[in-house]
Amino acid sequence: MRLYLVPISGNSYKVRILLSLLNVPYEKVVVDHIKKEHKQPAFLKLNPRGEVPVLEDDGTVIWDSAACLIYVARKHGGEQWLPTAPAELAEVMQWIALAGEEIQFGLQYARRGVLQDRWTAGTLEQCQATGRVALAILETRLKNNEWLALGRPTIADIACFPYVETAPEAQLPLEPYTAIGAWLARCKALRGWTAR
Amino acid sequence: MRLYLVPISGNSYKVRILLSLLNVPYEKVVVDHIKKEHKQPAFLKLNPRGEVPVLEDDGTVIWDSAACLIYVARKHGGEQWLPTAPAELAEVMQWIALAGEEIQFGLQYARRGVLQDRWTAGTLEQCQATGRVALAILETRLKNNEWLALGRPTIADIACFPYVETAPEAQLPLEPYTAIGAWLARCKALRGWTAR
Repeated sequence: MRLYLVPISGNSYKVRILLSLLNVPYEKVVVDHIKKEHKQPAFLKLNPRGEVPVLEDDGTVIWDSAACLIYVARKHGGEQWLPTAPAELAEVMQWIALAGEEIQFGLQYARRGVLQDRWTAGTLEQCQATGRVALAILETRLKNNEWLALGRPTIADIACFPYVETAPEAQLPLEPYTAIGAWLARCKALRGWTAR
Repeated sequence: MRLYLVPISGNSYKVRILLSLLNVPYEKVVVDHIKKEHKQPAFLKLNPRGEVPVLEDDGTVIWDSAACLIYVARKHGGEQWLPTAPAELAEVMQWIALAGEEIQFGLQYARRGVLQDRWTAGTLEQCQATGRVALAILETRLKNNEWLALGRPTIADIACFPYVETAPEAQLPLEPYTAIGAWLARCKALRGWTAR
């Protein structure tokens, strides 16, 4: 298995976390985002979207971080990280959707804007407002649940983790969100979790 | 099964399409979005995100349009609309991700802005730029494929359909995208497809 990644990318980090938790060996291919290698023809052949991560496995190519998590979870994680019964699968997927929408367009884009002064989907205030929606939903959920879905760690937690952890870099301090803080610590304490 | 929806909502429309294709009987509960019923405590109990659609089925509550599609496809559609083999599931999920990200934050938010003068994630130009990324990826894919994933209709097509069809309302004419145009027609010709 080969993972195309950018080391500072939170979306790449999601896949690295799961591969590490499941102890799956893989080859890392670092994409040079400063040189915009991910927007060049060779990379666009792998992923027409022009984004990392991309996973290549025996000729199968998967783009999109959520799709990569799903592929690895189903191939190497049994029913533990992504079960297929309708209600269970849907419960995990709700949080995957939150990760791709409010978390990505809120927390991630606010952070990217602050760090790179790049604004493609609204101002800092707009991104932060969207990000706060995500944080409020997560905090409410985590007040009464140790994990986002199914009462156990799943790829829901992994998909939401990276850009929630870096919310302070988006100028959204996490101190008011005590349940989120405790959940971040629980995630990092999982056996096999990998550091950023 | 009970579907909470807003009649003009494309995200609600996705779930209505699949329920119709699979001929699943359900009760419609129309949420009054003008009165902001979806932001009131009673609705927020069902869905902390405060959005339609929401699906209720024998005590199971599913929010998020993609999660609703996944639930219905797995419960009533066998392997046809969402298979669970790792590579197949991931292939469908790539397009579900595109639907929730570039299509939602590009095509949908540009349309909502034009129709309701409501801008929460960038200007018209920014939303259109994001929307054009989605259209380009779809056009490339559909030039050589009748369907987005697996060579047959799946929930990938349903998830992408509504806000691509309404791209002209976001001031993005579809005439240059001939492969997308043919695909929209193929979708609408599916037996059991429901009109907006």
